[in-house]
Amino acid sequence: MKLENVLPADIERRSFEIIESELPHEIDSSVKSVVKRVIHTTADFDYADNMRFSDGVIQIIKNAVKNGADIVTDTQMARSGINKKRLKKFGGEVFCFMSDEDVAAAAKANGTTRAAASMEKAAGLGRDVIFAIGNAPTALIKLYELMEQGKIKPVAIIGVPVGFVNVVQAKELIMTADAPYIVSRGRKGGSNVAAAICNALIYDLDSGA
Amino acid sequence: MKLENVLPADIERRSFEIIESELPHEIDSSVKSVVKRVIHTTADFDYADNMRFSDGVIQIIKNAVKNGADIVTDTQMARSGINKKRLKKFGGEVFCFMSDEDVAAAAKANGTTRAAASMEKAAGLGRDVIFAIGNAPTALIKLYELMEQGKIKPVAIIGVPVGFVNVVQAKELIMTADAPYIVSRGRKGGSNVAAAICNALIYDLDSGA
Repeated sequence: MKLENVLPADIERRSFEIIESELPHEIDSSVKSVVKRVIHTTADFDYADNMRFSDGVIQIIKNAVKNGADIVTDTQMARSGINKKRLKKFGGEVFCFMSDEDVAAAAKANGTTRAAASMEKAAGLGRDVIFAIGNAPTALIKLYELMEQGKIKPVAIIGVPVGFVNVVQAKELIMTADAPYIVSRGRKGGSNVAAAICNALIYDLDSGA
Repeated sequence: MKLENVLPADIERRSFEIIESELPHEIDSSVKSVVKRVIHTTADFDYADNMRFSDGVIQIIKNAVKNGADIVTDTQMARSGINKKRLKKFGGEVFCFMSDEDVAAAAKANGTTRAAASMEKAAGLGRDVIFAIGNAPTALIKLYELMEQGKIKPVAIIGVPVGFVNVVQAKELIMTADAPYIVSRGRKGGSNVAAAICNALIYDLDSGA
């Protein structure tokens, strides 16, 4: 099997050409760069079908990022995958509270997950926050509760946890909350998917798209 | 849709029960914990079919970890996802050289990728290294070349890059090299998959499995 002769700088461009040519159907142009970057990250064309976007969410997130909004993730891995340098250009930062001692203590005291406890901590930030949840359905459920209680008003929720227990349900729930969302319906998702969605929007913005 | 009432501590156990019950066919017991953890990380049962293991690779990696071998990744995200605390129990560390300035400079000077340059840097470590490659096919190609030149002798190569350009070819190539391997054949893989494979082996070892 022969290697394709592609310069390092051209690998990404060539990859996106291949993805474009293999899309199973047309994707709405407003969300296409997000869907394609998720497929680029997973090589899984299921994402051409399972992603749901609330009305105007792309523009809402882009405007918020432009105005310096922060991103809160539920894993260090998602935090690690987001291009923090390019986000910083707009003034935003990426936070993950999962390893914080106070979060571990609160989770233990309340018999909940660290992910849920870290959402409570994020609610106390008092800043414009985009949530990027790639792992814990309990984070989405806690965000739903905090919104119901009027304790938090997220800019938007990127709800793409992966898994087998309460993942499907938590995503359906978050789509009924009063917040803009991007969701991968079903079991699939992940920290890599959450990071890819954030990066697609940051890159679009940074390149003026 | 009703939430399943599962205690935080039981979510992982319950998830693995579901995965076990939905496996499309029997998986060899020697590699089953790895395959199941990859499915746990991706919710993608394609991994029940696309993974390839060289003879004895599981035991080779476990023995090396037990003796303090290090892991080198090709992304900060994979590094972030590996359970470094539990690896440290055995004496090993996880390195990723992708953000190092000397690696960026070497890549630029040689017209190659930072991933390839970071493999060259790893070759200079002079330690027992398990490579966990979840992103860059160029890292696998460089490892192949370094082995051909006798400049490196990896403990094993976890070769699971994801993508569309030279990914399939690089994985096929690395399976012909003189090193134990775990590979996800085809386009699929990722930093999350690389980390999941490492963690499955570390957890098995740590629990005495």
